[in-house]
Amino acid sequence: MNTPPDSIRAVVWQEGELRLLDQRRLPDAESWLRLDTAAAVADAIRDMVVRGAPAIGIAAAYGVVIAARQRYRENPADWKTALEPDLEQLAAARPTAVNLCWALARMRGLIQCLDGDPVPALTAEAGRIHEEDIAANRRMGELGAAFLDGVEGVLTHCNTGSLATGGFGTALGVIRQAWGEGRIRRVFADETRPWLQGARLTAWELVRDGIPVTLLADAAAAHLMHTGQVQWVIVGSDRIAANGDVANKIGTYGLAVAARHHGVKFMVVAPTSTVDLGTASGADIPIEQRPGEEVLGAGGRHIAAPGAAAWNPAFDITPAELVDVIVTEAGVVERPDRDKLAALMARAAA
Amino acid sequence: MNTPPDSIRAVVWQEGELRLLDQRRLPDAESWLRLDTAAAVADAIRDMVVRGAPAIGIAAAYGVVIAARQRYRENPADWKTALEPDLEQLAAARPTAVNLCWALARMRGLIQCLDGDPVPALTAEAGRIHEEDIAANRRMGELGAAFLDGVEGVLTHCNTGSLATGGFGTALGVIRQAWGEGRIRRVFADETRPWLQGARLTAWELVRDGIPVTLLADAAAAHLMHTGQVQWVIVGSDRIAANGDVANKIGTYGLAVAARHHGVKFMVVAPTSTVDLGTASGADIPIEQRPGEEVLGAGGRHIAAPGAAAWNPAFDITPAELVDVIVTEAGVVERPDRDKLAALMARAAA
Repeated sequence: MNTPPDSIRAVVWQEGELRLLDQRRLPDAESWLRLDTAAAVADAIRDMVVRGAPAIGIAAAYGVVIAARQRYRENPADWKTALEPDLEQLAAARPTAVNLCWALARMRGLIQCLDGDPVPALTAEAGRIHEEDIAANRRMGELGAAFLDGVEGVLTHCNTGSLATGGFGTALGVIRQAWGEGRIRRVFADETRPWLQGARLTAWELVRDGIPVTLLADAAAAHLMHTGQVQWVIVGSDRIAANGDVANKIGTYGLAVAARHHGVKFMVVAPTSTVDLGTASGADIPIEQRPGEEVLGAGGRHIAAPGAAAWNPAFDITPAELVDVIVTEAGVVERPDRDKLAALMARAAA
Repeated sequence: MNTPPDSIRAVVWQEGELRLLDQRRLPDAESWLRLDTAAAVADAIRDMVVRGAPAIGIAAAYGVVIAARQRYRENPADWKTALEPDLEQLAAARPTAVNLCWALARMRGLIQCLDGDPVPALTAEAGRIHEEDIAANRRMGELGAAFLDGVEGVLTHCNTGSLATGGFGTALGVIRQAWGEGRIRRVFADETRPWLQGARLTAWELVRDGIPVTLLADAAAAHLMHTGQVQWVIVGSDRIAANGDVANKIGTYGLAVAARHHGVKFMVVAPTSTVDLGTASGADIPIEQRPGEEVLGAGGRHIAAPGAAAWNPAFDITPAELVDVIVTEAGVVERPDRDKLAALMARAAA
């Protein structure tokens, strides 16, 4: 069995500093930002320097370290109170991904137990969140790849790779693993308008790791399925509701509808930190509306006719009944529903 | 009843010259090209100075006038033989739209009957093709709008308006008419990657004619349907096969699949010159593959990661069973099939 290619890390904690590969500038430039305040981390999340649900959670955890260090230095007696606005600012940076909330809750839980200098313990916890994410991705890669045998082609959407996670990736981790094991012959990637994560980021990751990739306009996906060139659609998720409904990058839902129409299988790959049992169904997941200018422009300039409005939801909801399998690090759930997800999460917590 | 707004013409024959509004440069510049050889007209069609199935046919008809004038001037005795390569060059400019073939066949039929200077008769015939197209669009506007009553929103794809036709438009003609009659409240338009006809051209036309338009990323269409904001998808066509299968801009098929999934109605608007009874089904329609660079770039520059490949079919096929109604100038066909289309075409020919 070949080792899957895995050469990229986009969130790095080094010498007490958070460094982020600026994903707005890829693939044109590999430019790193150093962040030293919680506000800067929140800005980086909102402005999509770092994006992808797991990567956002990890960046926010390091953001807590940075903020706690500053507040403790300023006021060792009452730093926890001073830290509250920082935590709130980080939590508000983007609304849809539950991993952000989850990572902050985990840091907050530790903070409640801390006395004295919080930095060593918080640094270790953020590092654990980061390392556990990579380990989860590797496990999901194995579990997901096991579904793919002699597959001609897979289609993915957005970017769910090393750039979107602590490293290796969720859906793209499954694709990395399956490619390494010789289970798939071709990888197709939607360009993923308006932000073009597929064309800019997924293509960059796959080319760099030696996996050939073919891009297509998002609207060509149904025709691709009709031609028989793909047998699986493999995507990530920003939040999975208790009933198995999946929030993910805008366009995922249309892919799921088209996949079911063509008998193409639909796989969602996400760590258990993405599963939100507190959200009953997809209808309860907030959908972030992003600036219309993202749709009205392309390639860094305004393209649309002046005077046109835009509707720019960043995510959509794929109902559980269109999902063939959810892959998590704690196991897989085929034809997900409320009971199966609850059982998975109970197993994961045990 | 309000008069529908209709202020734009993109193909103009003036003082013996073909003038084309350069659609590659819209909406940034309104730049007109003057074409004086058949080769220049063929280039303009292939390079998408002029695009849209009916507009391509009209431009090609004028191209025949230009070519015949030149060949007759060079060789009054045997100009018809010399014209053959010009006709072939025009016919080969783009493969999917049948209107191009249809307009050339009509000009060719007249040429066979001509003696002496062919220019007056050919000019008149090209003008008739042009005027008949506008009249057909106005008739289709009325027939199509009649299906829309108290409709909250419609969604269209690509550009099917005055820019894509002799004037007024096919699908966009129905939208113009329905807007003028107060039958629809909102118009949504897919941006239509990779060429962004929706963002650049449809938005430009609608804004200019005072019809508010909201653009969306193509991949957001299924989510838009889920939100209940649109009740009809209205598109044009580049070729309709004898069984009612519809070739149209890439992405149309995915819209049709999503529309059926949501109970949204699906209307195809095209003149009878688009119906090709000689093509049995959509499987027999050639699908033009365009350069990958169209997908790898956006906004006039290369966007994708270097090393990524692209798959760029310009059209796809929507099977007849996903079409609720085909609107032509000769009448409408609901739930199209081979017999109904044959009957329509017999009626049109009578």
